[in-house]
Amino acid sequence: MADLAKRFSNNPIITPADIKPSQEGLIVECVLNPGAFKYQNKTGLLMRVAENAPSTDTTISVPLLDESAEGGMKILKIDRKDPQLKATDPRVVNYKGDDLLTTVSHLRLAWSEDGKHFTVDDKPFMMGQGKYEAYGIEDCRTSQIGNEYHLTFTAVSGNGVAVGHAITNDWQTVYRKGLILPPHNKDVAIFEEKVNDQYVALHRPSSPGIGGNYIWIATSPDTIHWGNHHCIAQSRPGMWDSERVGGGCAPIRTDKGWLEIYHGADNKGRYCLGALLLDLNEPWKVLARSDQPIMEPTAPEEKAGFYSQCIFTNGHTVDGDTVTVYYGAADTVICGARLSIREILATLDV
Amino acid sequence: MADLAKRFSNNPIITPADIKPSQEGLIVECVLNPGAFKYQNKTGLLMRVAENAPSTDTTISVPLLDESAEGGMKILKIDRKDPQLKATDPRVVNYKGDDLLTTVSHLRLAWSEDGKHFTVDDKPFMMGQGKYEAYGIEDCRTSQIGNEYHLTFTAVSGNGVAVGHAITNDWQTVYRKGLILPPHNKDVAIFEEKVNDQYVALHRPSSPGIGGNYIWIATSPDTIHWGNHHCIAQSRPGMWDSERVGGGCAPIRTDKGWLEIYHGADNKGRYCLGALLLDLNEPWKVLARSDQPIMEPTAPEEKAGFYSQCIFTNGHTVDGDTVTVYYGAADTVICGARLSIREILATLDV
Repeated sequence: MADLAKRFSNNPIITPADIKPSQEGLIVECVLNPGAFKYQNKTGLLMRVAENAPSTDTTISVPLLDESAEGGMKILKIDRKDPQLKATDPRVVNYKGDDLLTTVSHLRLAWSEDGKHFTVDDKPFMMGQGKYEAYGIEDCRTSQIGNEYHLTFTAVSGNGVAVGHAITNDWQTVYRKGLILPPHNKDVAIFEEKVNDQYVALHRPSSPGIGGNYIWIATSPDTIHWGNHHCIAQSRPGMWDSERVGGGCAPIRTDKGWLEIYHGADNKGRYCLGALLLDLNEPWKVLARSDQPIMEPTAPEEKAGFYSQCIFTNGHTVDGDTVTVYYGAADTVICGARLSIREILATLDV
Repeated sequence: MADLAKRFSNNPIITPADIKPSQEGLIVECVLNPGAFKYQNKTGLLMRVAENAPSTDTTISVPLLDESAEGGMKILKIDRKDPQLKATDPRVVNYKGDDLLTTVSHLRLAWSEDGKHFTVDDKPFMMGQGKYEAYGIEDCRTSQIGNEYHLTFTAVSGNGVAVGHAITNDWQTVYRKGLILPPHNKDVAIFEEKVNDQYVALHRPSSPGIGGNYIWIATSPDTIHWGNHHCIAQSRPGMWDSERVGGGCAPIRTDKGWLEIYHGADNKGRYCLGALLLDLNEPWKVLARSDQPIMEPTAPEEKAGFYSQCIFTNGHTVDGDTVTVYYGAADTVICGARLSIREILATLDV
């Protein structure tokens, strides 16, 4: 079992204590799963900040986006004895027949000169907005295409878990492009260059009944409308990615193919990272895939937290042979690690 | 409870006995859920034909598309005592961890001079093909746009339940356009004219966890790539469409708006038809929706069959105020009925 990652000595690099809540009365429970990018010689992280409101012995608090107000959140307080409340999962409660999240996430920026030490913005960069984001926005990828950054994020609401898209070129003004994929879908990353004059993206639909949590690929003329869907990676019974797989951020172009670092979870819910190698011209063709993880939860902050035994990445930066992976550890804090692209490719026997 | 339908006196108009199996050794279990269209002064139905292979006291037969042969199906025979077999649902068995369908569907044409008496083709019009249709193709809509018929159908395989698209203009040659929506999705109908210079389609994603079986709408520049997804109809607790809803075929343009006949199922799994009225220029805006069904299972062939208490439509023809709805009854036979567009609109209070 090879773990190719050289973890930062200052891990975790960002923790909930570093984050100012988005409004009074809220608690930052977790900071995790950042998109990563370069902008004006700085490294930027677009992090997911998950907030909650204090619960008590007698009430459970559920934060909800306040659609009637100017952004911000309202707190629904539910009596723990209410017969219409079902609360068994730490992440989701059911109230009056509706599934509600116990935390609501927004996206927050952090900046660094050296890629290791970050300063977190005081305010959110993007909050959930409107009927498709009432339960928040999560796990944003930040693909750079020319001067534009294409943000793709999970939009959660009672309508389902769908994929939102927005564009910025200055990290000040954001142009929202609506939902580019309907429920149930997440883990969307747009490739940072066109292939055969089409945009390409990885996505991860989930199915009730037949089908599973598999990685798919699609193409688009404009990043707004998507078609030509192909399944490129199923979960693999008996292996480290037996239960679910999902793409990370945009793949890295190498001589051998598009190198994608993805996550897989086994039947114990343990999340590791592995690699997929996709054909440069026909990226729906898989050339190689990791038999073993290239990185797995071994550090204390990866082994225990809000969701233990979990490494999840949706952001990295690349400098020559070095890919610096930013990742959520145990869904609670953000860490960094460096891997060699050459070493990853070597494990794929290509 | 109003049932606005004037059923054909010769219902059911097509039954499994009318259908020649696609190959020796197969049994036609059900014929159902046809797309409907006009072509060269005839009414055409593109029906779903569900076939099975005979099971015995000791073995269960599961048909599978034979990807290695030239179309056609192979039969997997499973010992009923095999510990890796789970068979409790009449529609799906689980074998070695995979969900498999007990029937596999293909699409077959039937033609009529009067819209009431049909002659069924001897051979399939389209069989499942390739890795996304290994378990068959189902419930095809046949939207006519100019001289082209846009076929949208459910493509079922171990990858999930997705949406295939194909085009024909002569009902002889079919041009396949790949998967236009990933799993889990079905009930896709493309509007028969553009709105604001974009193609528009209804679709019905299903979600594990948060979300449900709701009707969505999307737009496309080319019918291949889809975006701008909006949820237009959720299921409604306590009502006739409390558990799931899904679009029928392309909506009818009326002075009041786009009139869509859709299906809804309640918590007993009873499928009825109702109506949605959508804004002509902004069809993601719902102007009205049926409080009560406009048609419900009352005839014997609708009340009992492979899936009892079920009316399901994905095809109609329109002549002035009259819409002739073709529908699957109890998932077993095909029936027809006429409704008045004016009367449907009257129930919507518009």
